Amino acid sequence: MFFNSVLQEMVESSGGGIGAVLMGYDGIAIDQFFRPVEGVDLGQMAVEYSNVLKEIRQAAEILNTGAMEEVFIKTDKYQMIIRALNHDYFVALTLGREGNFGKGRYLLMRDAPALREALG
Amino acid sequence: MFFNSVLQEMVESSGGGIGAVLMGYDGIAIDQFFRPVEGVDLGQMAVEYSNVLKEIRQAAEILNTGAMEEVFIKTDKYQMIIRALNHDYFVALTLGREGNFGKGRYLLMRDAPALREALG
Repeated sequence: MFFNSVLQEMVESSGGGIGAVLMGYDGIAIDQFFRPVEGVDLGQMAVEYSNVLKEIRQAAEILNTGAMEEVFIKTDKYQMIIRALNHDYFVALTLGREGNFGKGRYLLMRDAPALREALG
Repeated sequence: MFFNSVLQEMVESSGGGIGAVLMGYDGIAIDQFFRPVEGVDLGQMAVEYSNVLKEIRQAAEILNTGAMEEVFIKTDKYQMIIRALNHDYFVALTLGREGNFGKGRYLLMRDAPALREALG
């Protein structure tokens, strides 16, 4: 399937990629590709962060700062790079702490137009 | 005052810096330095985003992904780089869309230990 192969390629090309998900702001994933990681439910992570993104999108609207494009979150253990695709969907790539943030960001930027087009 | 001079230096050294704020997760600023920008209340922006950060911090705790360290948000008009200082406070630097993200991120990383120490 097109979405799954794009997500898998993203995870495998990024240095330290753990998972990628194509998801709605309602927390429902269209497709995902995850490497198994002990102790963390990466699907659940994406759902939690969809709430965060909804808040950011809302804040951007209230403040009239223009539409949200990219969000990057780094914790002690992970880096999550998120790119808005349209009003309903976003794509998120999770890397390990030592993952290559710049490469991951580039991959999302590169693949966003094709994903957006396939979403219709 | 120490905080204000650090924030001002951050804004002036970063390419395209608009404002910097040292703020609690409760949305109350300790200090801030803003260049005047038409049509946007940058103080209000920081308050709105403190809600977003609280959500992210909570998500990171629920998911056991380790403490939140850095957050980066890019909209059509602005880039906001945020760095957690301790459990109560964070520092946020806002750049214009064409601002130098890498430089801004470096400045926050460079100044965080001094700010953390001064917060006590």
